[in-house]
Amino acid sequence: MLSREEKKRQTRKSLMDAALGLVGNGDNFSSISLREVAKNAGVVPTSFYRHFTDMEELGLNVVDDLGMLLRKLMRNTRQSGGYAESLTRSSIEVYTDFVCQHRNYFYFMCQCRTGGTLALRSAIRNEFKYFANELASDIRALPVMTEIDSQDLDMVSQLLVEFVFESTIDLLDLVDTSPTYQKEFIEQMVKKLRLIWLGAGKWRS
Amino acid sequence: MLSREEKKRQTRKSLMDAALGLVGNGDNFSSISLREVAKNAGVVPTSFYRHFTDMEELGLNVVDDLGMLLRKLMRNTRQSGGYAESLTRSSIEVYTDFVCQHRNYFYFMCQCRTGGTLALRSAIRNEFKYFANELASDIRALPVMTEIDSQDLDMVSQLLVEFVFESTIDLLDLVDTSPTYQKEFIEQMVKKLRLIWLGAGKWRS
Repeated sequence: MLSREEKKRQTRKSLMDAALGLVGNGDNFSSISLREVAKNAGVVPTSFYRHFTDMEELGLNVVDDLGMLLRKLMRNTRQSGGYAESLTRSSIEVYTDFVCQHRNYFYFMCQCRTGGTLALRSAIRNEFKYFANELASDIRALPVMTEIDSQDLDMVSQLLVEFVFESTIDLLDLVDTSPTYQKEFIEQMVKKLRLIWLGAGKWRS
Repeated sequence: MLSREEKKRQTRKSLMDAALGLVGNGDNFSSISLREVAKNAGVVPTSFYRHFTDMEELGLNVVDDLGMLLRKLMRNTRQSGGYAESLTRSSIEVYTDFVCQHRNYFYFMCQCRTGGTLALRSAIRNEFKYFANELASDIRALPVMTEIDSQDLDMVSQLLVEFVFESTIDLLDLVDTSPTYQKEFIEQMVKKLRLIWLGAGKWRS
């Protein structure tokens, strides 16, 4: 039998899944009602409030959960080692696979990055900062980065993180219309990131 | 007295303005109703249908109008001449001013780029292509670009256009909390774009 704690976690997860499922079906998170989410999760609306105060708080929890999961995945990928070029490729491949396996999450993130409430937009902006900080500390030791001071290294990391995330909506949309698009997307991204790396290599702080 | 044609144009504009006003007030375009837009424009709902078949078509018209206006503005700025560095700075300054003077439009564009209907997302993606094509033909002659073939020049132009647009939501959000942010934003963007230019300068197709 499930413990009380475990049941609670399950309901929380099914509420989040229900909201993300509606987003995956084409709804915009901003217009989804709490009532609809509760119904799709198979619980009464009052039960929703035992987990989240409102839809915004549910959204903030999705941002947190996904951010943590994805940061861990990307760090592991980077720490498997290699030079800038191979790190870039493996990172993009891992990210792209993860996005395609968690489409609902990323439609949600893309929507909320620009169209969520102020609190959601700000939470996602903060996630980008965490990502960029971790990336900066992972790439600091690369030979290409020796002439860059810490502040400019943060700038390069931000540029890389923002750029990859902002292309995600194209991946989500275009992978639907053409099954080979994922491969094409990876090649294009690797090329664009290589250009940013080249710039970083020539940068003198 | 206004001609029939002129009146029609005015009503069309007030419908678009009403929708953008609601977006500027924090609504998401995807959850705005046609009825609400008509009411705020001071016309009856049936009058809406004389201009647009639905909210999506209104949105597509906003994308068109804004795209045309902004492309013209950016081309003029670039054609005033100068080297990569000064072109970058003047382009970013002009863009930033334009965004701050048309906030409702850009909240709308940011929302719809990732959260609009498929048709809206696709229309905005096409606008990016037009922008990148024009940018490519304007920068082809720059000394830094002589070693780049046409396909890679398109890639650089896309990178520049996408990157500038994707930062727009940060500008819109953060300019509210701090009046000096616009200046800071310009400096950050110029720096990031300089890094992309450096990369382009080192690129060999």
